[in-house]
Amino acid sequence: MARAAGTPLTPSQKVAWLRLIRTDNVGPVTFRQILNRTGSAEAAIADLPRLSSRVGIGTRVPTVTEAEDEIAALEKLGGRLVASGEPDYPPLLPYISAAPPLLSVLSGEQLELRRSVAIVGARNASSAGQRMTALLAADLGAAGYTIVSGLARGIDTAAHRASLSTGTVAVLAGGIDQIYPEENIPLARAIIEHGGMLLTKMPLGWQPRAQDFPRRNRLVAGLSLGLVVVEAAKRSGSLITARLALEQNREVFAVPGSPLDPRAEGGNHLIQQGARLVTSAADSIDSLSEADPSRTTLLEPDWEPEFDETVADDEPGNDARSRLIEALSPAPTQVDVLINTTELGASVVQTLLLELDLAGRIEWSSGQLVALRS
Amino acid sequence: MARAAGTPLTPSQKVAWLRLIRTDNVGPVTFRQILNRTGSAEAAIADLPRLSSRVGIGTRVPTVTEAEDEIAALEKLGGRLVASGEPDYPPLLPYISAAPPLLSVLSGEQLELRRSVAIVGARNASSAGQRMTALLAADLGAAGYTIVSGLARGIDTAAHRASLSTGTVAVLAGGIDQIYPEENIPLARAIIEHGGMLLTKMPLGWQPRAQDFPRRNRLVAGLSLGLVVVEAAKRSGSLITARLALEQNREVFAVPGSPLDPRAEGGNHLIQQGARLVTSAADSIDSLSEADPSRTTLLEPDWEPEFDETVADDEPGNDARSRLIEALSPAPTQVDVLINTTELGASVVQTLLLELDLAGRIEWSSGQLVALRS
Repeated sequence: MARAAGTPLTPSQKVAWLRLIRTDNVGPVTFRQILNRTGSAEAAIADLPRLSSRVGIGTRVPTVTEAEDEIAALEKLGGRLVASGEPDYPPLLPYISAAPPLLSVLSGEQLELRRSVAIVGARNASSAGQRMTALLAADLGAAGYTIVSGLARGIDTAAHRASLSTGTVAVLAGGIDQIYPEENIPLARAIIEHGGMLLTKMPLGWQPRAQDFPRRNRLVAGLSLGLVVVEAAKRSGSLITARLALEQNREVFAVPGSPLDPRAEGGNHLIQQGARLVTSAADSIDSLSEADPSRTTLLEPDWEPEFDETVADDEPGNDARSRLIEALSPAPTQVDVLINTTELGASVVQTLLLELDLAGRIEWSSGQLVALRS
Repeated sequence: MARAAGTPLTPSQKVAWLRLIRTDNVGPVTFRQILNRTGSAEAAIADLPRLSSRVGIGTRVPTVTEAEDEIAALEKLGGRLVASGEPDYPPLLPYISAAPPLLSVLSGEQLELRRSVAIVGARNASSAGQRMTALLAADLGAAGYTIVSGLARGIDTAAHRASLSTGTVAVLAGGIDQIYPEENIPLARAIIEHGGMLLTKMPLGWQPRAQDFPRRNRLVAGLSLGLVVVEAAKRSGSLITARLALEQNREVFAVPGSPLDPRAEGGNHLIQQGARLVTSAADSIDSLSEADPSRTTLLEPDWEPEFDETVADDEPGNDARSRLIEALSPAPTQVDVLINTTELGASVVQTLLLELDLAGRIEWSSGQLVALRS
């Protein structure tokens, strides 16, 4: 079942991928682990009841019809599902850990996603901040960069608006049909009309919850060579996005401001921490042209499923399961540490983690770090 | 005649030093070279006519009476002359190249000059910039740092005002009795009344010319562990001071500002070049406490005259003189390069350079770099 990178999924494969990723407790990390274990989404779905029954909880897998219905509804809106490994999957995204296996996208077929820059910042941006954003976005756009942002009020809005004609990507925290905030529905339409892109990993109809915004921010950074923070308070979503971008080995830029302006605190702080100070697009273009997400600590894209290397299923017993649960804690722990601590062997630990994952008892923060859910 | 570091000059030595440094074409570098050659200022003065006559120009040396009159007038104002190597010579200053052998100072006997920070910036500072300056100066003062600045309008004024009670040094571009700008005469008085210091290397009565301000700035940086630039345009005296501070191996800090504010251009540019971004005194105190001007590229204070190592006087001929002049150019050249190019030998080259220096035909940019005056 091995599939060469860059080949599209068949329609039935895509249905199986969608069913698997929409299964409770199956996130990108679990998705990949199951695929590596079983060789395909179809085989994984067949295996799920057995795996999840061991921890005593039935896992609800969406039906084929449900998956087909989501795809049909998406297509009716003019959208499409893009799978990891497909030619139009955003080329910088596989280098982040736990990249989503499936994205819902609207429009943007002609966008250059190899050269993209995220611009994010405060929702309550000052007019100077919005002006600065517009200058940067327009100049970066003119220099051939696609502008990525989160369609929020303030800086995000200014960034999209100023790059409508050169190309912009809005990443949503909810479903592709759930534009938030409502006041930006016209902007979302304008983005589509100009050939820009709306993108999300969430299901159609999904209304964004608070925790969906940082996840959206991870994608904003992951889609981009670099991230520019324009106005950000000290504890703000933009700073979280900057941290995520650093973790993803992307360039981080910040626009400075007066220390007497609270909206400059975040950016100034980032610069003190090593972010590059930008005053113009020219300041960032030099380092962007040298940026290379493949020089990430992950070394290889996280999302080329290794179909050929399936893990044997060892059917571990209850004793092994208790030993692993004891070794886990609410603090993220390296899988290697768990293997050493429990002395259970890599294959057994991986099988047990998969079971616990499907049962919703653990949480992956990357493919290497796992924590007990509190 | 060797004099141990830290011992005061005798009154007659001080008169001789003053006569020598007030001689035409004798700057700090020449002063040191002549002292190293002759062993004392008295001997140097006796030797000057012979040296300068060789290039055909008589050098005017102030008389003993003139020097005594300057000292008396200074003392009448409550001031004093401080010589390099004396206990109250500012302890960080000898680490700059071409440190002045004599300073005129008023008040400030109790100031802590080992822990001092310069704050400089735009004369046409914004009110926010002045407020920021006052915050930094007051907080650094409270933390035990003496604030050094140039008594100019704007940022300098705000820095001195906010540190009156904790200790401040105003470095003047003219004579100690020539306060510039006039509107700051009351501030200068307040500095003295609070035990702060006025300091200059220029003679009493000297009215500052344009070229005296960058020279003043060199002392501002040289007196300080670090330099904070608050508001500065891209081409401004403050940026020159920052460059001088870097050359002197001092810490350089800059307060950031909005790229839309022209007064922030200089500071933002400095940060891009590696200056530390400061938003509060706390940001700079950590690195200041680690700052150590003795870790300068000069390796040793530039201004402990090496009396014991006098150079033999070789009485070079006209041919040698022409060869050296040919090797010199308006671009600063290393003395070592001149010695190699002319094949005249170190001692001959040094004697010739001294003659040319006294004749006003060359200019030292440090003790190592010399250029033909155009």
